[in-house]
Amino acid sequence: MSKQERVLTGDRITGKLHLGHYVGSLKNRLLLQEQYETYILLADVQALTTHFENPKIISDNLRNVALDYLSVGLHPEKSTMFVQSMIPEIAELTVYYSMFVTVNTLRHNPTIKTEAKQRGYKDMYYGFLGYPVSQAADITFCKATLVPVGDDQIPHIEQTRKIVRRFNDLYAPVLVEPEAIVGDRLEGLDGGNKMSKSMGNAIFLDSSRDEVTAQIKRAKTDPNRIHKHDPGNPDICPIYDYHSAFRPEGCDEIRQSCRAGTIGCSDCKGLAIRAINELLEPIRERRAIYSGRPKDIDEIMIEGTRKARRVAGETMTEVREAMGINYFA
Amino acid sequence: MSKQERVLTGDRITGKLHLGHYVGSLKNRLLLQEQYETYILLADVQALTTHFENPKIISDNLRNVALDYLSVGLHPEKSTMFVQSMIPEIAELTVYYSMFVTVNTLRHNPTIKTEAKQRGYKDMYYGFLGYPVSQAADITFCKATLVPVGDDQIPHIEQTRKIVRRFNDLYAPVLVEPEAIVGDRLEGLDGGNKMSKSMGNAIFLDSSRDEVTAQIKRAKTDPNRIHKHDPGNPDICPIYDYHSAFRPEGCDEIRQSCRAGTIGCSDCKGLAIRAINELLEPIRERRAIYSGRPKDIDEIMIEGTRKARRVAGETMTEVREAMGINYFA
Repeated sequence: MSKQERVLTGDRITGKLHLGHYVGSLKNRLLLQEQYETYILLADVQALTTHFENPKIISDNLRNVALDYLSVGLHPEKSTMFVQSMIPEIAELTVYYSMFVTVNTLRHNPTIKTEAKQRGYKDMYYGFLGYPVSQAADITFCKATLVPVGDDQIPHIEQTRKIVRRFNDLYAPVLVEPEAIVGDRLEGLDGGNKMSKSMGNAIFLDSSRDEVTAQIKRAKTDPNRIHKHDPGNPDICPIYDYHSAFRPEGCDEIRQSCRAGTIGCSDCKGLAIRAINELLEPIRERRAIYSGRPKDIDEIMIEGTRKARRVAGETMTEVREAMGINYFA
Repeated sequence: MSKQERVLTGDRITGKLHLGHYVGSLKNRLLLQEQYETYILLADVQALTTHFENPKIISDNLRNVALDYLSVGLHPEKSTMFVQSMIPEIAELTVYYSMFVTVNTLRHNPTIKTEAKQRGYKDMYYGFLGYPVSQAADITFCKATLVPVGDDQIPHIEQTRKIVRRFNDLYAPVLVEPEAIVGDRLEGLDGGNKMSKSMGNAIFLDSSRDEVTAQIKRAKTDPNRIHKHDPGNPDICPIYDYHSAFRPEGCDEIRQSCRAGTIGCSDCKGLAIRAINELLEPIRERRAIYSGRPKDIDEIMIEGTRKARRVAGETMTEVREAMGINYFA
């Protein structure tokens, strides 16, 4: 990776962020912002694809997500945080890329397939079907080279790469192919499902010490382990996943003790609680500071959006020139 | 119709305009611009849906179409001529409307159905499938109430009305339902097909007197009429259609004479040639003036686009407010 890299990443604005986001992407962003120019998309338009009937969810959560970013340690001088709907160039690129992506290509995208299974393909909304196209616009407007994402997003990045190659072939080599930096998957508190807000199995980044304690205490473990000295199976226990994620130095030992039945679930959970709270403590401190400064949060988003628009404008100029539609240039 | 009406109309930039455009829409525009604020869209983005592999066709024809408009008598002080790709708000509205229009709705649109028959539905491009959505954005960005169109466009206007109602229901009554003003259909020179560039059966607005004469002389007539005094069938003769369109005062007489076999095709064509040339003569004169002033044509488009963007910006402010995504307002 050279110093030329540029990072683009972001989140759909549908609610507060949780530990799954941390492990899946935020952790990588914190490392990347130290080295590379980083753009973080507050994806309100993409949230609308599934929340158009209730956009209040989005306006209610925009500042929450920005606060999550700042609390976690993303720094406005290193990471440009911007609002998707305020960059019209993203909509323009979406429209241009739409010209040369077939319906069939989109139907083969796993996210689209999953949705099609749930509600039928024909009743799908046109905007939702175009999700992979608009994501390509998100990534390419700033010529991002690195995209920290969860594993479910890999096909989207592959689709973006195809769109970039097609555009560059058709017109001129203006766009840049991004690479995915894939984060880890975190188990939810229910065990067996990925941590997600919609599953109700998430530990949010704004949880207090007591909330974390209570949630972990209630969490599922290996259901076959009835008595304290029964041997357990860490591979099906979400708590073990938390050890791996937040206490990697001690997780081999936990694995062995669990299998041997020499550590009880309660003690094991106690260690996980401590590790998670250690992770969250500095996040809570930063949150306490930023929570009292809502105007600063707005200013960070406004300034970030201004910067992102400048970059978007530069890219659009090149795109128009490549396509030969810069009539009065 | 009150003075509150606003007109939006336009053409895909795929080539010069012809008499079919005149009869189908330009004629109505000339009347409407005298009464109402009129916006005329040079639809380069929509032309890209079918010409993305060769956008040069669009840049080559943009000024031709603007010249056609000015030559025909559309006046820049009455009709705001603007370039679609230079109004990013249209792309933004396209994206927002996409959220709540299903794939199925689009598949029922006649234009989409026709294309699906030709190249299969799955191989259709995503942007092409969204044609009715982007047309809704074209019409609503300026809150147009009247849309002069050809008869093939009626389902699109109906789709726009549905999108407007849905948006207003979902958010707030910001958008305006347009009404179609349907122009006439003109037969092509081959007889039996609508006049269109792609069918090669068109008389272009920039045709010289001699070209019109030659084209009409070669045009099909009733194929069952072999001898001069055979009775003819005007209903299957394109020349009769030209009498109806360009010489309505004399067309009853032509109809009777044709049926009675008292006028020969050559004489009948002579009258049509004269009528068409009379229509085109002032158009040629204006064209001669504007052709020598390419910078003025550019300036008309640039100024028109500037004005259209102001209107688009006002609509977008209301749209964002209605949707509750005007976070920092």
